[in-house]
Amino acid sequence: MNDQDERKNDSPVKAENLRLVDCTIRDGGLTNHHDFSERLVNAAFEATSASGIWAVELGYRNSPRFRSPKEHGPWMFSEDAVLRRVTDGVKDPARVSVMADVGRVDPDTVGPASDTPVDVVRTATYVADVAEAIELSDGFLEKGYETTINIMAISRDRGPELVEALRRLEAECRTPVAYVVDSFGALHPPEVTELVELFRRECPSKAIGFHGHNHQQLAFANSLSAVAAGATYIDGTLYGIGRAAGNCPLELLVGSRREPEYDLRPLLEVIAKEIVPLRESVEWGYTIPYAITGLLNQHPRAAMALLGTAEEREYEAFFESVLRTVAEEKD
Amino acid sequence: MNDQDERKNDSPVKAENLRLVDCTIRDGGLTNHHDFSERLVNAAFEATSASGIWAVELGYRNSPRFRSPKEHGPWMFSEDAVLRRVTDGVKDPARVSVMADVGRVDPDTVGPASDTPVDVVRTATYVADVAEAIELSDGFLEKGYETTINIMAISRDRGPELVEALRRLEAECRTPVAYVVDSFGALHPPEVTELVELFRRECPSKAIGFHGHNHQQLAFANSLSAVAAGATYIDGTLYGIGRAAGNCPLELLVGSRREPEYDLRPLLEVIAKEIVPLRESVEWGYTIPYAITGLLNQHPRAAMALLGTAEEREYEAFFESVLRTVAEEKD
Repeated sequence: MNDQDERKNDSPVKAENLRLVDCTIRDGGLTNHHDFSERLVNAAFEATSASGIWAVELGYRNSPRFRSPKEHGPWMFSEDAVLRRVTDGVKDPARVSVMADVGRVDPDTVGPASDTPVDVVRTATYVADVAEAIELSDGFLEKGYETTINIMAISRDRGPELVEALRRLEAECRTPVAYVVDSFGALHPPEVTELVELFRRECPSKAIGFHGHNHQQLAFANSLSAVAAGATYIDGTLYGIGRAAGNCPLELLVGSRREPEYDLRPLLEVIAKEIVPLRESVEWGYTIPYAITGLLNQHPRAAMALLGTAEEREYEAFFESVLRTVAEEKD
Repeated sequence: MNDQDERKNDSPVKAENLRLVDCTIRDGGLTNHHDFSERLVNAAFEATSASGIWAVELGYRNSPRFRSPKEHGPWMFSEDAVLRRVTDGVKDPARVSVMADVGRVDPDTVGPASDTPVDVVRTATYVADVAEAIELSDGFLEKGYETTINIMAISRDRGPELVEALRRLEAECRTPVAYVVDSFGALHPPEVTELVELFRRECPSKAIGFHGHNHQQLAFANSLSAVAAGATYIDGTLYGIGRAAGNCPLELLVGSRREPEYDLRPLLEVIAKEIVPLRESVEWGYTIPYAITGLLNQHPRAAMALLGTAEEREYEAFFESVLRTVAEEKD
């Protein structure tokens, strides 16, 4: 029996090791310029805390130097005072998480963990920027935060450059969690299994996470595959709210668990009261243009730009234009 | 190497053996009392034929003796004259399929295949009624139709009664295809794998099919699992239209195939022109009540009844009521 066989016996993940992360406000903020009311954020934090979620990501911790407060609402910056107003007094609170984008956060503006309501800082990076991500994330770790490094757009970067990045993470980085992020909703479940196994093989000292997108209606299935392959950190959002086709619905993740520490009821209540009404003004979920970008492994931005235009139902023309993009990439 | 190992080597399915079946009008008819216009049905038939689909199921072939034409539109009965009007003159037509429900069709009203536009008759049955299904389906086979037997609600009947039914199918039935039908959208991908493997083991002389529902957003993932496990007949519908949360989107099935015989374009066009506009008057797709019935392995009828009532967003109360149903079943 070699090392790999031994590792396989560890998975599926034991229930007590699973850590669900709610990204409703952070990823959902990409649908509404990060402009949720504090009332809604407080209600969502209270409900997800009561449902057994490990951490709730309330926004980006990007710097006004890089992102204009005129164009982005408060959850792009997630200032401590704002976070305190929506989390103070909540019973048995989940950990408070924020996301830092490589190149968009000034680390000097993030003080020691003991001075803030933030418990977890997750650093989002592309494979190419992993050196910067390591420096940034380990800096947060030294300030007392729990940290993760989330490798975005992984369906585009699966070659030797990914293996090299993972080896660097294992050798040079103290942040204990590495995430597979399927930003384009392009992966099928067996590919998620392979990627989680690759991460476990190259980063045996780290826990592995998975963040899915729903362009091909595979976010929940991919999350189940990730857990079966040994990932322990899994992201979801209430009713799947999130950029473009959205994320893995948190209610499906929680509803599929049989352990007594999970409770679906608080999620059902907050979805009815706060999230479903949002659909009157905010769009997310499966549409044909998102299916096309997912199928062709492309960023959803072209599909997002199409929505609301006179051409939004010109699916065939859109398909042809994305095929041209794919062909140009290969040239 | 035993028999099972040998069979495993046959899958995944070779491309030339895959047979996609479009159920847009038949299963989609459950959302609108089978009342599509002939123009729409003709457009859908033309598009699916052009996209490489093997068969298009245009409705039920149930008898007015058992189903009232006052309550159900023409695609509940799929009379030959109607089918001719929507299929005549279509270039390279797909096979025309109809579905017969055990107990709702008078076999004497179905003439020989040579006299009708129907090529395929699929018989839908519960495990308990499989003897009637065999008699009915083999009767259609003798009349010259291609036939399948589709075992519904399989997530509820996975015990020895299923194995017994499958052994009967293998021993007593000439119909060459047996379908796994996840009517409640309750199955996870690994369960689909197990069921397809069970069908292949117990019915080695038959081809296996899969029909998914999308209550947990798993219809596409489950279909991929079914193909990987060796199923060769896979059902989908345009834009996922179908009862309750709907079916596997046909555009994802076709879009994920790389063989030149499949073409996504005709599907994109008909979805834009005919199917998306239907959403103004007809509801299908993921909602929280359907997620709840799927998670708890229940028929979606309680969730369907809730839609449009004053309580339609009382998700927590609905969850409790379904939990009570589950508890009563166990008593």
